Amino acid sequence: MTEASNFVMSAIPEEFAGIYRGVSEVFPHQPDSDDPNESLLARLQQTDRPLRIKLGIDPTGSEIHLGHSIPVRKLRAFQDAGHTAVLLIGDFTARIGDPTGKSEVRKQLTEAEVKANAETYIEQVRPILDFDTPGRLEIRYNSEWLAKLDLGKILELLGTMTVGQMLAKEGFAKRYEQGNPVYLHEFLYPLMQGFDSVALKADVELGGTDQKFNVAVGRDLQRHFGLTPQFGMMLPLLLGTDGSQKMSKSLGNYVGLQEDPLSMYSKLEKVPDALISDYFELLTKRSLDSLPENPRQAQKQLALDVTGQFHGEAAAQQAQKDAINLVQGGSGQAEAVPEFSLTAVNFPAKVFYLLGATPLCSSSSDARRQIKGGAVKLDGEKVSDPNVEFAGPDELVGKVLQVGKKKFVRLVA
Amino acid sequence: MTEASNFVMSAIPEEFAGIYRGVSEVFPHQPDSDDPNESLLARLQQTDRPLRIKLGIDPTGSEIHLGHSIPVRKLRAFQDAGHTAVLLIGDFTARIGDPTGKSEVRKQLTEAEVKANAETYIEQVRPILDFDTPGRLEIRYNSEWLAKLDLGKILELLGTMTVGQMLAKEGFAKRYEQGNPVYLHEFLYPLMQGFDSVALKADVELGGTDQKFNVAVGRDLQRHFGLTPQFGMMLPLLLGTDGSQKMSKSLGNYVGLQEDPLSMYSKLEKVPDALISDYFELLTKRSLDSLPENPRQAQKQLALDVTGQFHGEAAAQQAQKDAINLVQGGSGQAEAVPEFSLTAVNFPAKVFYLLGATPLCSSSSDARRQIKGGAVKLDGEKVSDPNVEFAGPDELVGKVLQVGKKKFVRLVA
Repeated sequence: MTEASNFVMSAIPEEFAGIYRGVSEVFPHQPDSDDPNESLLARLQQTDRPLRIKLGIDPTGSEIHLGHSIPVRKLRAFQDAGHTAVLLIGDFTARIGDPTGKSEVRKQLTEAEVKANAETYIEQVRPILDFDTPGRLEIRYNSEWLAKLDLGKILELLGTMTVGQMLAKEGFAKRYEQGNPVYLHEFLYPLMQGFDSVALKADVELGGTDQKFNVAVGRDLQRHFGLTPQFGMMLPLLLGTDGSQKMSKSLGNYVGLQEDPLSMYSKLEKVPDALISDYFELLTKRSLDSLPENPRQAQKQLALDVTGQFHGEAAAQQAQKDAINLVQGGSGQAEAVPEFSLTAVNFPAKVFYLLGATPLCSSSSDARRQIKGGAVKLDGEKVSDPNVEFAGPDELVGKVLQVGKKKFVRLVA
Repeated sequence: MTEASNFVMSAIPEEFAGIYRGVSEVFPHQPDSDDPNESLLARLQQTDRPLRIKLGIDPTGSEIHLGHSIPVRKLRAFQDAGHTAVLLIGDFTARIGDPTGKSEVRKQLTEAEVKANAETYIEQVRPILDFDTPGRLEIRYNSEWLAKLDLGKILELLGTMTVGQMLAKEGFAKRYEQGNPVYLHEFLYPLMQGFDSVALKADVELGGTDQKFNVAVGRDLQRHFGLTPQFGMMLPLLLGTDGSQKMSKSLGNYVGLQEDPLSMYSKLEKVPDALISDYFELLTKRSLDSLPENPRQAQKQLALDVTGQFHGEAAAQQAQKDAINLVQGGSGQAEAVPEFSLTAVNFPAKVFYLLGATPLCSSSSDARRQIKGGAVKLDGEKVSDPNVEFAGPDELVGKVLQVGKKKFVRLVA
């Protein structure tokens, strides 16, 4: 990651190394400037108050995975350096969704859904952030200011940009040139995100590399409203455990923050060698100079380190032992985990039927018996209700279904 | 005008002739359709309730001239056919102006200014509209609904159009192609105007031919909100008394609705021959088949007809006599009115100084004496204060300055 960034890591003083670790780009970035408006390093060195570090969250209810944890970990690095993490819950944005109904992504949620999702999100990132030290964390909701915007203010926001500037945004430009419709309301979302930075008086905004345009809009709006513009700190997107595509729940190549220790450990100890270094850089604090040289050892260390962050070191160690037992059947002899393809299964499917379809049980009634007898686990968690239903393969791909100590399959698409 | 319209006047039944008279375009217009959604004529013939005819007004305080009176006269034609004129005062639009400060035209006005301007406007159009018959006139203010729009609703409005559709608007397209900035907030104004039609449930919107895009946006928004789309009735822009440019106060080629009878009559009896027919069509009810053949007679008839509308027939007749006296000095012998160029005058200029600069008085002190003696008139109105000041030539161009019965000059640029 460091190679692709726009600053030289070795030029960053040790005390700020955690803040800059794994970052793709900081902007603006004038390496030799000591103007705190041109260089984040200068700002960090000269500030006489905690900086306000913004991270925006869509409370759309997705399960958070390790890819999402990267900017949250970065917030923590700023917290540890004495700054204030500002976790912005986009509740207003989620409440209105895409009022035109044109976007599948921006589904309209009820107030109760948004609230529940926000709470779930906060629970999931609790192991990463410092919730306890006074002044280190602010949780805000953008309905506080966006619900109050009237037409006059919205005209003012829109008036800060030209059509040409907005169409320069990646995505818009391409669609417009190809003659695909770009709807006018889409132009408001970057301005809403930018206005969040105004309302929060953000000093730094974190985001994936795809967020650069929106962060720049925030800078312009802050300037328009007489504030010092924020810095953007762009973070890389994490590749999934398949080593080829962005980590994503729908691709089944993800590790969820709430997975149990065994599941988390098992997925991480299989991360492809080519990703190990990135995973260490983005998901741990371990010095990249002292990683185990043996790739198999490195995988195990990574799995231990990350699992330990979310479940504690003891649980991570136990997961390591369980994983060995699971795969080696306690015999000390490694076996490949057999795969079972879900293509033959008709969804929605109850778990007893699913189990009966695998080689693990001889029939559906055998499956019911095994479940009632307490012998069945899905990704390490006991299954006690034979009628638990799965809507589709997405809920199952990548999980290990197990009967007793020795019989298991990995469910694949 | 009729030649340029998109319908055949002779196909319009006599009872609707007043509504269609002088119109540039009606849309949609399927001449042979009896679908009331495709043909305004069918709508007029089939409706079982008064139609709602919208005319939007910017209460920016300009003096209303005959050019502005054309759509107001059209409102009256609809009133006379039993329909409801809906005069929409754009108070909200004027109150917020252009919040970016980029537009000179959209100056931000105070609530008091807007109120005063609206009242002035209403006073000026009072001679044209039917204010008395119950149900024939509705005066509305768009703050009633625009002030209540929140971000969610505004996203919905914006989401009804694509960038491509909006950039097709004349003016936007050209500026964008030439690389001149088109600011995003400009996209909201047509949608605001369109939403006015939604709120008013307009059946027909009147406007100059330059308003066609905005009226079409109104149709789309009405459809979006489940209403029957309005018809657009586009009216020609009136050429000024110079016969070459659009009537406009700043060009000095206008006739104000509040001008005194003599001034109004004097300007109209000089309308170029080429415009006479258009003026009769757009500003009077007189049958175009029975206009005086003698051009000089036609000018006088036009001046009498229009002056009579605003001041009554007796005052118009008196104005005709006064005009003859003024120009012929009561001698029955026509004289050309000498012109006096204002280029030699330093502005701001007090009236006594202005008068002293003309050949009408021998000096400034002579001018003061003449004013105090009650001998001085400007466009037929007595000047009694020698210290009345004029900021620039725009306030004077085209007016007649007069001392006694026989000495006068027409002020020119």
